[in-house]
Order: sequence, then structure tokens, then C-alpha cells
Amino acid sequence: METTTQPAPRKEPFLRNYWYVAALANEVRPDAIFSRTLLNEPVIFYRRADGSVVALEDRCCHKHYPLHGGELEGESIRCGYHGMKFGPDGVCVEVPGQTTIPRNCRVRSYPVVERNTWIWIWMGDPALADPSEITDFGWLDSSTWAGRSTVFHVKASYRLIIENLLDLTHLSFVHKSTIGNAAVTDKADVQVERGDNEVKITRWIMDAPPPPAYAACGGFTGNIDRWQIIHYAPPAFCRLYTGACAAGTGARAGNRQQEMGWRNLNAITPETETTSHYFWGQVHNHDIDDPGMTERVFNGVHIAFQEDHKVFEELQRNLDRGARDIPEINTRADAGALAAIRILNRLLSEQDAGHAAMVRPSDYRYAPLTDPA
Amino acid sequence: METTTQPAPRKEPFLRNYWYVAALANEVRPDAIFSRTLLNEPVIFYRRADGSVVALEDRCCHKHYPLHGGELEGESIRCGYHGMKFGPDGVCVEVPGQTTIPRNCRVRSYPVVERNTWIWIWMGDPALADPSEITDFGWLDSSTWAGRSTVFHVKASYRLIIENLLDLTHLSFVHKSTIGNAAVTDKADVQVERGDNEVKITRWIMDAPPPPAYAACGGFTGNIDRWQIIHYAPPAFCRLYTGACAAGTGARAGNRQQEMGWRNLNAITPETETTSHYFWGQVHNHDIDDPGMTERVFNGVHIAFQEDHKVFEELQRNLDRGARDIPEINTRADAGALAAIRILNRLLSEQDAGHAAMVRPSDYRYAPLTDPA
Amino acid sequence: METTTQPAPRKEPFLRNYWYVAALANEVRPDAIFSRTLLNEPVIFYRRADGSVVALEDRCCHKHYPLHGGELEGESIRCGYHGMKFGPDGVCVEVPGQTTIPRNCRVRSYPVVERNTWIWIWMGDPALADPSEITDFGWLDSSTWAGRSTVFHVKASYRLIIENLLDLTHLSFVHKSTIGNAAVTDKADVQVERGDNEVKITRWIMDAPPPPAYAACGGFTGNIDRWQIIHYAPPAFCRLYTGACAAGTGARAGNRQQEMGWRNLNAITPETETTSHYFWGQVHNHDIDDPGMTERVFNGVHIAFQEDHKVFEELQRNLDRGARDIPEINTRADAGALAAIRILNRLLSEQDAGHAAMVRPSDYRYAPLTDPA
Repeated sequence: METTTQPAPRKEPFLRNYWYVAALANEVRPDAIFSRTLLNEPVIFYRRADGSVVALEDRCCHKHYPLHGGELEGESIRCGYHGMKFGPDGVCVEVPGQTTIPRNCRVRSYPVVERNTWIWIWMGDPALADPSEITDFGWLDSSTWAGRSTVFHVKASYRLIIENLLDLTHLSFVHKSTIGNAAVTDKADVQVERGDNEVKITRWIMDAPPPPAYAACGGFTGNIDRWQIIHYAPPAFCRLYTGACAAGTGARAGNRQQEMGWRNLNAITPETETTSHYFWGQVHNHDIDDPGMTERVFNGVHIAFQEDHKVFEELQRNLDRGARDIPEINTRADAGALAAIRILNRLLSEQDAGHAAMVRPSDYRYAPLTDPA
Repeated sequence: METTTQPAPRKEPFLRNYWYVAALANEVRPDAIFSRTLLNEPVIFYRRADGSVVALEDRCCHKHYPLHGGELEGESIRCGYHGMKFGPDGVCVEVPGQTTIPRNCRVRSYPVVERNTWIWIWMGDPALADPSEITDFGWLDSSTWAGRSTVFHVKASYRLIIENLLDLTHLSFVHKSTIGNAAVTDKADVQVERGDNEVKITRWIMDAPPPPAYAACGGFTGNIDRWQIIHYAPPAFCRLYTGACAAGTGARAGNRQQEMGWRNLNAITPETETTSHYFWGQVHNHDIDDPGMTERVFNGVHIAFQEDHKVFEELQRNLDRGARDIPEINTRADAGALAAIRILNRLLSEQDAGHAAMVRPSDYRYAPLTDPA
Repeated sequence: METTTQPAPRKEPFLRNYWYVAALANEVRPDAIFSRTLLNEPVIFYRRADGSVVALEDRCCHKHYPLHGGELEGESIRCGYHGMKFGPDGVCVEVPGQTTIPRNCRVRSYPVVERNTWIWIWMGDPALADPSEITDFGWLDSSTWAGRSTVFHVKASYRLIIENLLDLTHLSFVHKSTIGNAAVTDKADVQVERGDNEVKITRWIMDAPPPPAYAACGGFTGNIDRWQIIHYAPPAFCRLYTGACAAGTGARAGNRQQEMGWRNLNAITPETETTSHYFWGQVHNHDIDDPGMTERVFNGVHIAFQEDHKVFEELQRNLDRGARDIPEINTRADAGALAAIRILNRLLSEQDAGHAAMVRPSDYRYAPLTDPA
């Protein structure tokens, strides 16, 4: 078995030419300023009259006062310190006390798109921003799925969250009370496919007892055939196609008429090297008109993800106090996560070397279950 | 327009051969030890029998235990750890358990002067300390002015406070509810005079509505002619000669018989590179026998300065998370502040190069309104 | 008098091939996991079925998750993240989801011994660990002594605690209300013996008033002859043989029939360079069947040691903000502490140079009052 160590900090630790999730749509309310640090940069968000979202550097170009301390004036924002005013493109339109505008007087503006109940931001070269190349999270506003999403602020690197999602054997130990049981580790038939720029992990757990949340939500009285198909794409998108049918009804062979279908949808956006905004949603394709079911499904996963949240921060603490330099002993279950981290590291190296690394959703080869219409 | 960036940290970040304000006089009470860190050095203060103030290094020369944990014995202080005793000149006068005193056994003592309700300290070469060269803040104990002073502990560099005081256009945005209104920026006629070692900024706002605090305290029912004359001298003295007369009564031509005269008096003493002790006072020359008026005037400015306090700390936070390296876009209103910072940087460079930089009040050329007798 | 400065941080700041105190025996309870950082390494402790203690690295070798978040299974521990299981020797015995164990799959295990109510750990080369070479603290479970021990978490270097214990003149200033009075400094006849690897300080205070705790516990109505014999051995063992007899009854000549004998027992284990676990006990050889007396004796010292605790942290704060580089002026009373610190620094240098520095209790030459049987 190979060993790995956590990478040394880089000058530029994040992939730049990618769409990242910046906020839940409902975090950016009309007539209000929302601020968040993303990829080490402070950003503000607000809405134009037509509802479209503006994203600007949260730092006036005059004295670097945070613009979130200022005031909206129509579609512009006025700094709260000396009153410099910027349009939604970040260009200064007024300097109080003088009639001319200094050359280059602007704050950075970012391409931004609202899609699938999330607000997406492009923090790389604006000329390369293509809204058609946003990773699909269409389940979140599909008419044939029910569910919702939220965001956790996690004091841990986004890498630790990716590794977590790509090795589901942890469900048997961290999430025994909800979505995990021994079978997830012991009975799983696992296949890992490694693409140039993506990873697909297929796990089948045949003829095994359902974990607590599956029994509660799926009404299973006997054993189940359960699947977990995980798709990873950089920088940090992990979409989990999961579900179960009563054991022996032919799910693996393709008969999923009676499936309890769940999707677990994850997009992690680094705040800094060691803190993250973890956006995730949970949807289901059964009982979609029953809000109580949606709450039960969401709450089960929410309990589990709060358990993970604690794990992430404990891991980061141990890394910060010395474990960073200690090799990790890898197991077979790490295969998918190792492949993902290797892709990430290669893309970062290419970016450091001056290639504008980009993996477009249209390049994905392994996202087979295109549920949303 | 030029751009500027915040300077990189220096080995010695503070001008040394200057008098700085160390404390309000009433912070150093009889028979008590007062301690404060100034220019990165911990210092204690106490009073002799005649009331004069002693300033010593807050660090026993034996094991570096803070002397503020010890006890006064007459005009001496005894360390609370092993009982070493120091006279008011910092020289060790007793080592318990032995009859001899080790060579060089002393803590640093600082020249100190109590003047104008403040305690001043000289932290440079003691041979150069001349009490006649303390910047005048005589309004604070003048019989023809009323008012008082206080001190803020600010988590920001003293530079940010100087820049704030030398660009008063911020009153229109930060202090709308008290001492600012749109006219302060829009209608100001501004003149900047740059001396070798000081800056004078003269602002006249003619025939404009009074801001809330001026209306409340000056009883103005119509427009006013308002002036703000700012004197900066290094390291961080900013004295603001301000006031107003009813519009058209000839204030600018010299007729100030009916003036509402205010002075805003600022002396900032660095604690560290990124924290400051901000001493400031506010005085007025009208209704000086009415304590209620003094409270109203002081409180109006106090509300405004609490607003500034928040601004300073937000600015420092943005600097600390990366803005330090981003150029600032300067405006016309920055002219005075830029001149002041340029003087400060030049004096620090000269000090680094081995010149004992000193700008004496007797060298000031631009302090024209010498109000105190 | 010579001067000294605090040493610069080293790559390896701690002596490794030594037994250190890791915990009070009752901190490690049956069926529970106890965790503590020692010498910069996170460690867990638990008990086998026979009560013997296991010490393992608190960091799974897979993903570095802290093992204290896992669960005991008999004499093994299972990681709480992906369920890797380790035996009491630290060797991995199970990787869930696979039948083979990766090569080198283990966490570090440490030799550990329970003795004299304390749990001892060896964090150096395991081949050199010899339980017969644990420094004797037999008073803590002797049938002819009564008393008990505790542990303080101190935000200060272990060096500051050693220096404190080896210069008892501080009792006259820090501990006036309990174990100190002026005589401890003024009337002490002090002899310092410096060995190659240990220090012995003998202090006799003849015909002097008892300090408050001695008067309260020893029932002395007149002056006493008091002794303090301090033995230091590296890394940080300070055993104080103290006591008193009525003055003039011949204690110094050897007649201690009527002695009030106390022992103050100290073992400091570094947590980090600037934080420490300070284990200390207090025992007495009079009224040993009176639990009230034991409480009185312990509480008097406990009050004093809480005073020291504050002193340590104030000292560390002053070191951290610049005093580290300022020479200390030494006094005659520092002789013992200076000798101890010199031994410590020499042993650390030898260790840096590749010698496995070790000072064994069987090498001690100066531990003359071997009270426990």
C-alpha cells in the first residue's frame, strides 16, 4: 500500500478558472448586502432591480474599507467611509468632493450566475467564464425531486471534505445512527473508475439490512439492495447517486421501479486554506409531495453531516499540530479519494506552471445518471 | 492620481525621540501602579510623594517579572517575585538575601511630564528630552475653554487614525447623525499647505446648513459659515481648530465675535504596529460655565469617534487579510493625509539611517491659532 | 554577576530518553479513554483488563483522526472515523472492508509504568526504557507519610517552573500568607552543590519565626529551626525535603525526633515549548492519621502554588512580548537555578549532537534523604 502526506501550502492554493458556489440563493436578499470570503478574497453580493446578482470585491479601492459597511443606491454601492460610489460592474462612478474619477478607479467584479437555488461565482480569468459550463445540480429545483440544501462553515480544508465523501466506509463508524451500518463497509462491492479529470466510485451493498434512516424513510421491512454511485469532479464537486430497493427485486440488473432514490449533492468552496464553505443538498424521488418526508430525509442526513463536521475540524486540528508531515497509511477504500486528490494536485501544478487548468462539465465522462430533465 | 500602498513592517516602526501621551492624568492615582504598553514596551507609572509621576520599564531586570505585580514602598517599587527593589530612577537599591547590588542592575526609566491633564513620556534618547518641546494641548486646562479628554484602545495602526483625521470628507458618510453632512464634502473650499515636517489643511464650508450637533449646540437656525483648520505634526498630533458663525456675518474675513468655537485635539500613541492608544479631547469656547453644554458637545463627538473606532478596526482587518499589498487609489481629498504619511515615512527612514529624527514644536510653522494663553 | 538570556527555540526542545509523568493514576479510569499532549505529541491512555495502562499516539495512522474520538473494544481501540482497529501495542489488527493489513500499519505505542500514584511515560527510544530508572516519588504511597498530589495546566515553559523551585527566596514575596516570611530570604544559610547532572541546594533558617502555615500545622509557639533541601535532576524533577523543629533543639546537628517533616514533590512535563503539565504533591510525616491535617497542609501549599501559577504565566507573557532577548541580571540566590538550567542546556545540546542524553536515578549522587522505605 502506498502512503501519502498532506501537501505543503502553495502560493496559489486554489484552482481559479472554475465556477464555485458562493451562496444559497436566499442568502442574498433584495435591498441587502451579503458578504463572504471565498478563495481568500472578500466579496459582497447584492441584487439588481431585475433580481440578478452582483458580486464585487469587498474592499473599496480607495482606503480598502469593506464595502459591506456601505449602502446600496439603486444598483450601485456607496462606500461607508468617504463615499466613493461603484456601479454593478465595479467601476467607480462618483468620488465625493471632485468631478473627475481617477484612472483605474474600480473594484474587482466577478461573473455570477444564479442556478439550481445556488449563486455561482467565477473568480478566475473573466474572459473564460462560460455559464453553460456550470456543474449540474438540477435536482435542487427539479419537479420530480424534493429536497433542499444548506451551507456549513467548516474550520477545515476542502480536501478533507472531498476525502470524506469519496470513502463511504466511514458511514459504518461515524453515522451508525442514521445512514450507516456495518454492511456499508463489510458487504460493499466497490468499483473505482479513474478518468483523466474525474473519478467515479460505484458501490453495491446487496441483500443487507437497511440503516436506520433507510428503514424509517423507505418503509423497508426486510433486507435491501443498496447502491452508492459517487461522481467527483474538480475542484470539489461530489454528487452521490444513492438509493435502495427491496433485496432481490433486480435493482442491480436495472429494475428500479420501486426504488427509494436519494441524491446527495456536495459543492465545497474554500474560504481559506484551512476553512471552507460546505454547500450540500439532499433530495429524494419518492413521496415528493409530502413535506414531512422531505424533512425526515433531510434531517437524517443533517445529523450525519454534523457528525462529519466535527470530524473535519478534529482532523484539521491534528494536521495543524504536526500530523501534516506524517505519512498516511492508505487502505483499499482510499482508492477513490486518492485518485481525486491526485487530479486536484496535478491541476494545481499545471496552474502554477502557467496553464489555465480547467475541467468543464462538458468534458465529464462519468456522470451517467443524469436525473434532472 | 498617484497610488500608495501600506508600508512593510520595519525593524523599528516608531519614531523614538518624541514626546508621546502615555496616560490621562487621572489614570495614575496616588498609591497605585498603572501599567500600559507603549511603542511595544511595557511601562508602569506611579506618583511620588510630591505627586510627580515616575515611569519605569514594566519588567524586573532579574527574571523579567512585570513590576505591576509588585508593591510600592514609598517612592520605590518592590518586585513581587523575588523582592528586588528599584528607586524612581530605575536603579536597584536592594536585592533581598545579599548586601551587594549587581552591576547594571536597573530597569529603564523614562522622562515623564504631566501637562494639560495628560501624562507625557519620552521613550527615545533621554539626553534629548526637553519638556519645553511638548506639543501644546493647553485648551484642556485653559480658563477660557471648557471640555475634556479620554482615551480609546484601538486595534488598528496609528497611521489609519492620522489618515482619518486629515481627510474630513468622511464626516459626510460616517458621521451624518452628529458632526457631518453633505456640505462637508460638497461645499468645502480646501487648501493644503505642506511644510517640511508638518501639514496644515484649511477647509471653509460657506453658507451651508449646520450638521445636527452644530444645530443642537450652537443654536443656529439658518445656514452657517463653518471652518476646519487641521494641523498635523509628527509622530501623530492632529489639532483641529473648528467652529462656525451664522452665514454671512464675516467669519472668513475675520469677524468671529459670535463664533461657536470648538477644538478637537488628538494625540495617538502606538501600542504595537497594529494597536493604538488614541487620546483625544473636545473643547468649546461658548457656554463654558454650563456643564450640560460640555457634555452635549463631548457626547456628540464621542458618538462620532466611536463610529470611527469601528472603521479603524475594519480597515486594519482588511489590511491584515491581504489588502496591505494592494495599491490604494488616491483622491484629491487625500492630499493632506498623503503629505503627512510621507513626512512620517521620511522621518522613519532617517531614523533607520541613524539620524535621530526630531521635529520640535518650536519648529512648527503652521500652528497659527494659538488659542491657549 | 553574570547575566543570562532565555534560549532560542530548538528543533527538538525536549530531552527524549527520560521517564516523564503523564497523568495522575486516577485520571485514567477503567473503560475510558484519557488524552493529553506531552512533549508536543498527542497521546491516549486506557487500561487493560488487568488494570495496566496503555499509551498510544492519539492519531490514527490512516487519516490522522484522533483516536480519543474512537471506542475501546476490550484491550484494543477502534478509530471513530473508518474503524481501523489497533491492539495495545499500537499494531493495526483490523482494517474494515479488507482482509489484509497494510505494511507498517500501526500507531506509536509508548512504554508506560504506574508508580507512586502517577503514570509514567517514556517518549524516547523504547529500547532504552528501564522501569527501574524512574525517579523515586515513593512518599506519595508510603505508609509513613500522608499527603496527595495534583496537576496544574500552566501556560508557561517548564524552565520557568524549575527556576522558581530552585530559588526559594520568592517565598518571602509571593507566599507571605502561607509558607513564606522574611526569614526565608534574610536568615537563610545556603549551600549549593553542583553535580555533573544534578543540583542540590541546602538552606537552613535558624531561630526564626515560623511562617503562617508552619505555625498552623506544626503547633510552634516560638521560633523554629527550618530546613529546605532541594534536589534537582533533569529533565524537571525537583524534590524538596523540608521541615522544622523548635529552635535550639538540635535539628541541624541531626536531632529531628520532634520534627514537622514535609516533602514537596515536583515533576514537570512539557506539553509544548510554552505550556506545561505541572505535577506536584505535598506530604507530611506528622499526624498522618488525621485527614484534616493532610487537607490543611495540602491546602496551604495549594494556595501558594496557585500564586506561583499566576507568576509563571505572567513571566511567559513578558518573554513572549520581547523579554526573551533581554539579558537577565542574576543574583546570588540564582546559583542553583542557573546550575540546573546549564545542565539542561548541555544535555539538550548533546542530544542535538546525536548522543542519547540520559541521566538515570541510579546516577544521582545528591539525593541523600531517601525517606521512602
